[in-house]
Order: sequence, then C-alpha cells, then structure tokens
Amino acid sequence: MKKFLLALAFVPSLAFGQNHESNLRKIYDAELSSGHTYENLRYLCKVVGNRLAGSPGAAAAVEWTKQLMESYDFDTVYLQPVMVPHWERGGKDMVKIVNSEKHGTVELNALALGNTQGTGAKGLVGEVVEVKSIPELQSLGEKVKGKIVFFNGPMDPKLIDTFQAYGGANAQRSSGAAEASKLGAIGTLVRSLSNTINDIPHTGNQRYNPDFPKIPALAISTADAELLSQLLADQKDLKVYLESHGEMKTEKLSYNVIGEIRGTEKPEEIIAVGGHLDSWDVGEGAHDDGAGCMQAIEVLRLYKQLGWKPKRTIRAVMWMNEENGLRGGQEYARVAKEKGEKHIAALESDSGGFLPIGFSSSGTEAQRGKLTSWADLLRPYQLWSLDRPGGGADIGPLRDQGPILIGLKPDSQRYFYYHHTEADVFEAVDQRELELGAAAMAALVHLIEQEGI
Amino acid sequence: MKKFLLALAFVPSLAFGQNHESNLRKIYDAELSSGHTYENLRYLCKVVGNRLAGSPGAAAAVEWTKQLMESYDFDTVYLQPVMVPHWERGGKDMVKIVNSEKHGTVELNALALGNTQGTGAKGLVGEVVEVKSIPELQSLGEKVKGKIVFFNGPMDPKLIDTFQAYGGANAQRSSGAAEASKLGAIGTLVRSLSNTINDIPHTGNQRYNPDFPKIPALAISTADAELLSQLLADQKDLKVYLESHGEMKTEKLSYNVIGEIRGTEKPEEIIAVGGHLDSWDVGEGAHDDGAGCMQAIEVLRLYKQLGWKPKRTIRAVMWMNEENGLRGGQEYARVAKEKGEKHIAALESDSGGFLPIGFSSSGTEAQRGKLTSWADLLRPYQLWSLDRPGGGADIGPLRDQGPILIGLKPDSQRYFYYHHTEADVFEAVDQRELELGAAAMAALVHLIEQEGI
Repeated sequence: MKKFLLALAFVPSLAFGQNHESNLRKIYDAELSSGHTYENLRYLCKVVGNRLAGSPGAAAAVEWTKQLMESYDFDTVYLQPVMVPHWERGGKDMVKIVNSEKHGTVELNALALGNTQGTGAKGLVGEVVEVKSIPELQSLGEKVKGKIVFFNGPMDPKLIDTFQAYGGANAQRSSGAAEASKLGAIGTLVRSLSNTINDIPHTGNQRYNPDFPKIPALAISTADAELLSQLLADQKDLKVYLESHGEMKTEKLSYNVIGEIRGTEKPEEIIAVGGHLDSWDVGEGAHDDGAGCMQAIEVLRLYKQLGWKPKRTIRAVMWMNEENGLRGGQEYARVAKEKGEKHIAALESDSGGFLPIGFSSSGTEAQRGKLTSWADLLRPYQLWSLDRPGGGADIGPLRDQGPILIGLKPDSQRYFYYHHTEADVFEAVDQRELELGAAAMAALVHLIEQEGI
Repeated sequence: MKKFLLALAFVPSLAFGQNHESNLRKIYDAELSSGHTYENLRYLCKVVGNRLAGSPGAAAAVEWTKQLMESYDFDTVYLQPVMVPHWERGGKDMVKIVNSEKHGTVELNALALGNTQGTGAKGLVGEVVEVKSIPELQSLGEKVKGKIVFFNGPMDPKLIDTFQAYGGANAQRSSGAAEASKLGAIGTLVRSLSNTINDIPHTGNQRYNPDFPKIPALAISTADAELLSQLLADQKDLKVYLESHGEMKTEKLSYNVIGEIRGTEKPEEIIAVGGHLDSWDVGEGAHDDGAGCMQAIEVLRLYKQLGWKPKRTIRAVMWMNEENGLRGGQEYARVAKEKGEKHIAALESDSGGFLPIGFSSSGTEAQRGKLTSWADLLRPYQLWSLDRPGGGADIGPLRDQGPILIGLKPDSQRYFYYHHTEADVFEAVDQRELELGAAAMAALVHLIEQEGI
C-alpha cells in the first residue's frame, strides 16, 4: 500500500492530467463553492478604489496585489518597473447650454475625456456644430472653425455583440478632438459610448495630434446628447460653456505586478494570464478591469488550493496603464523579448466580469485549432463561443513572439452601461458570473499547461 | 411596375417566408432599436406593481394587459375566466431568536411562505431542530414533536444551471411544513432558496397536507439561516418566536388574458406564447414573470410593426395564478380541449428577463428535431442551447393535446438573487437582455408559424 502511494506521488501531473474532464469539474467546484475572486474584488474596489496610472490608487493597487499574491505563496512574485503617463482630471468638469430659448441655462452631465488638456477656471464658450462621425466632420471643413464640435454618433443597438457597436462609434471619442482641432474647432463634446439613454457620462481615452492645438474634449451623457441635439434642431445659434481642468503631468514610475507558478516539465514555456490593474478615475474599476485582475490571480490560487503543479509555467500579470497609454503591456512584451522568454499563450480578461460565453483568439491555424478542439470539454460550462477573432489590448504587444493571444469572452449586453463611469462599482458585479469567468480561465489555462498549444 | 407590385401584394407570406435569415434579422433589428418590451415592463412594475392572484393588483394587471393588447390592434383580445385561490399575507411576518446566550433577542429577516396559515398576533414559541432535507426530517421522527423544524438545505453552488440547484433544494420549501406537521412539529423555518448569502428573505409556494394541522411556514434569509445554524451548534435549547398573519380566503374570479393574430393559411393551428401575469406580493414581479408577459405581447406587436401576417395563429397568453395554484394554466388547457383547439406549440418565458441562451423543450422526437434543425438560424443571436429538456409550468397542462412545449432559456446565474423577493423590481432587469429574449421568442414563433413543427 505504501509503495502504491509512493508511485502515485512520483507522477502527480500524470495522475491529474489523465482526465481533463474531471479536472475541469474540480476547478469549477472549487471556484463556485470556495472561490476568493469576489471577496478580492470587493477589497480592490472598496479599499483601494479607482486607480488611474500614476495616481496614489494605482500605487496602492500595485502594493496590494503584490501582497495578495505573496500571501498565496506563489513561486515568484515581483514588480516590473514601467514609466507611465500621469494625467489628472484636476477638478469638476462642466458643460452648460447658456442661451437656450426654451430653457435658458441647462447644465449637462459631463466628464472630460482622459488625457484632455483642461480649459481652466475661465472655461470657454462657443457655438455648437453637431456631427455624427469623423467623416461628417471632415466634410464640413472650415465651417467648424471657432466652433465646438458635438459628436453625436450613437452605438448601433442592432448589433448583438455590443463591442462591435462600440468599435463602430469610438473613433469620435478617441480621435474626435484631434480631427476637429485640425479644422480649427475650439472644443469638442462627445456622446457617451453607451447603449442606454441615461444621465451617466462615460469617460475614456483620446489622443491629440501633436501638430495641432490641444482643445478640450468632454463626454456628455446619452440623455443630454439627445437633448442637445433636439435643441440644436430648433436653435442654430445655441452656445455651450465648457470647463475642465485636466492636465498631463510628468511621467511616473509604476509597475506591472507579476506572480508565477513554475512548470514542472517545461518551465520555460510560459502561459500569461491577466488583466489591467489601472482603471479610470471614476467609479471603482470593478468590471474594467478589477474583475480581470482578480480572476487572473484566482487561476494561480486555484492551483494552490487544488494542490496542483502545472507542467508549464503559469504567470499572472496585472498590466499597468491600459486605459491611457498601454505602457505596461508594451514593457512586458519588450522585457520578455529581451530575456528570451517563450510565451506559448497569453490570456486576458478585459471585457467585464459578466457571464463567460467562450474565448476569442488570434494565432496560427494550428493554435486556434487546438483551442477549438477542446470545445466538448468547455461546453458543459456554457463556453460555446470559441471561434471568434480577438485577444486583448495588453497582450497585443506579445504578438510577434508567437503565443496564441486569447480573450475571455463574457456576454457583452451590460458592459457599456458601466464602462468608464461612476457606475462601474463592486455592486455591479454578480458573484457567480465573476466566478464562472475565473473558472473558465483556469480551465483553459489547465488544458494549455497540460497539452501545450 | 404597378402590375409587379400587385403581384407581390398577393403573396406577402411567400415574400417574407422565403428568407428566414433575413426575417430573423428584421425581428431583432426592430426589437433592439424600437422595442416596447422594456417600457411596457416599466408600466407593469411601477404602476400596476405586484399582483398575487385574487389581489387588486392582479385585477389591475388583467385590465391593463387587455387594454395594451387592444391598443396594438391584435385580431382578438379577450379574457378567459378562471377561479383562483386568494391568499393574503395579512401583516408583517416576524421571526426572533428569544434566548440566545450570546446575543439575547435576535430578529431575523423573514417572510411567510405563500398559502401559509398565520399564527396571528399571539405568535408561537418553540425550540428549534435543524435539518438539511426532508429525508433527514423523517429520520428524526417523533423527536421534532412540539418543535419548530428549521430546514437549512443550501442550493448547491457547484451546479452551473442554478435551476438544477433550485430543484434540488425546493422540496423543503414546498413540502417541508406538510411533512413536519405529520410528525407533530408546531412550525417551520426554511432557508431562502438563493445562491447568495444576504439578508433578503425569499417567499414561494408551499402545500399543506389536508390531513394534518396547517402549521406556520416562514422563510428566513440565507445570512440569518447561517447565523441560526451557528447559534444552534452552541446552544441546543435555542428558542424562536414566529409570528405571521397569512390566511387563505375564499376563491376569487380572475382571468387569463389572451390576444391573438389569426393565421392566414392554417388559422386552426395555434402557437401559444406567454408568461404568467400573477406574481408574489413582494417586489414588483419584474423577472417573475412580468418579463415573460411583456415579451409574449411583444412577439405579436412585432408582427404588427413589421406588417407581417402569420400563416398560423399566434396567441399571446397571460396565465393567472402560476405562483400559488396554476389554475390559469389548467383552465386554459381544459378550455382548449373542450373547444377542440389544436395547439401545435406552446412557448413560455418564465425564467427571468435575462440573457437568452436558447430554448428547452418537451415533445416528440420529430418536434424536437425540427426545433434543433433551426440551430444555424438561431446561433447568430447567441441561442446555442436547444437540446435541453424543459417547458413551462403554465403550458404543462397542454401536454396531452400534443403541442411541443418550449421554454425560453435565459442564463440562470442571477435569477435566484431576485426570485420571490422584494428585490425583483424593474431596475433589476437589463433592457437589452429583456429585448433579446423577446426577439428570440418572436424568431422562434416566426419559424414555427412558417414551417409548422
């Protein structure tokens, strides 16, 4: 009997590798009955709070996630330095219609876009020109000179995957100010990128063109965008006052936070699993992307709880500065190449802590074929969507090093209600949906570390 | 040209029947960009409110849904009389631990189960015996005599489909009091049927055994069930005070509310689509089952909006009294048989207004094969689960008349947070998820009315 047990002890990876189906069940059972993901997310949201790159919140998040992974006794936990942009909102953003014939002065729900240069306390006033898109702006040419351009392109509600609708509408947010400035506009307003008509403004990244003035760029809520559009239809000389206080400060030193469990058979083959640790400076960054970070740590923690040792190295990575720079993802890839590391797969969760429906991926036909070959193992967990292209912003820079890039794919219906807003708080996350995401990631990582890809 | 248009006008059903794929897209486009489901649900929840069978709220719901369907100009709208039980809660339910050595008196969050005979203002006090299930109760036999039985069987968090976990735990709620009374218990407490540990008590139906005393049966919140269990572990003589005021009154006349659009080619073949109009007397019955009712009406409204006439008759049915009697479903089936109606399919939505992932069904192999043959048409709308058995409580009585019985299958992760509680309100429903459910039902009804099943 003793001999038999010893024999088993010598082949632990075989013992649990022989039955993927049963191991996936163990992962789900452990996560759904004793997972840490939800309580860890509560701490990140409620104690650390929001954490834009360069902010004290981001520093606290770095320190806390490092300590958390150390407390789980992963093989290695370390910080990877990275210089990040440091933008501060600087004060309350304000947008007011000042001369409505119907309503007089009307204050709109507004939030400056990230990286925006503020107007300062003096603000600015201008007439408003409404467009639905950047091409429409460009067709107006000189007519927007001296005006405030109001981008009012809605997300297309007819698209089932709301990320496609987001993709179709976000150029006006990310490049609207740059394009309007080229034509001499003095400021921009942008309809919040949301499927819902309500009063919550959504911030997000925008990039100036360095050859043109940095004009203020503010989001207004969808309800206020509808109102402004209606008032403009009746009154062409409508004027709006903008005030914002954003400032890009000098770069700061920050960190990617990394924890790993070394592989027993092929430790040089690395599977990165992660999310981005930074968030916008409103709300708590619960869905975007506290959820992904806590899920990634949970993948490794489940290995510890189950007493498993992976064949290949599993590495949890909290990337810094996805929201307004992507410096963390870029630095991680640069260092990996410099060190000659071999990533075979990188899995990012950055689409919210909602019900997982599968994985999207980018890679070779062989890599993607391997992923879809696991369909029957994943389907009992409602992971049915395995063939869509995708990946993740932070893992994108790894592409030329050859790993398959994979994105956890949650259902997208509710994401753009919360995205980049004060509403993206812990309470907006459902425990079971979050846990199913963590278990889905652990299940896929398990298959990859066992079989390679 | 005129001739050509006339020719088209004579074959409208062919014109839109030739391309299911394009018609399904039209249904989804219409619903997601100009659906009425969400605003109708808002009215039902916020103006009508909750609506237990026999209550004024139920009468208001009957009248309002009838008027709503008339306003949409369906071919026929009528009420089908049905006698329903009329239970009233009668006052505030109360559960208190009265002699905790640790905490003295502790009030627990409680809600009497439906159909429960109250204690009246005098209440009752007794020692508590904890069990996890009815078999465990039965193994105790006479030991529960004169005691309050506390059923503390949790829903199994490891099951992915939470309805399975509900099914595994609900006997203690539905039959616990009847079984405990047989053994001489004086009252029962039951752990709320929820996946979440919190302070919200969940009511629900329970049935007495007419040969034994009708002892009070109250649910307590999951957090309080955990607390009570912990205290009992340390103090065996713990006593609890119960007070409730429920009373079963004389039966009332109520109605199923029915609206239909007659088929152009086979009007005698009926496709029923519906939900149950009654709800529990707490919250607003938003997910259970205002959502299903508003989705069913929307199926017919979409036909009007799109200018379509179905080949077979489509009938929206709001069944009355699913929660504590099922009289509406039984009467509907009885009348259908009496009239010699021919139902080819019945589709119920009664699993919440959450993200639809497919349909469950019961029927012949041929019927179910026809349903799954549409998989490629439904998959673009994320309707991937078509092979699970199922149906719906209200359509069950139609079974022996031969239709395929179909249940809309939304994802189940969040349902038991809200189910039968004060938290089941309009705000708990996501607009897009609700609309996707309505569109899914319209899509399936369209395929059935075109092709038969």
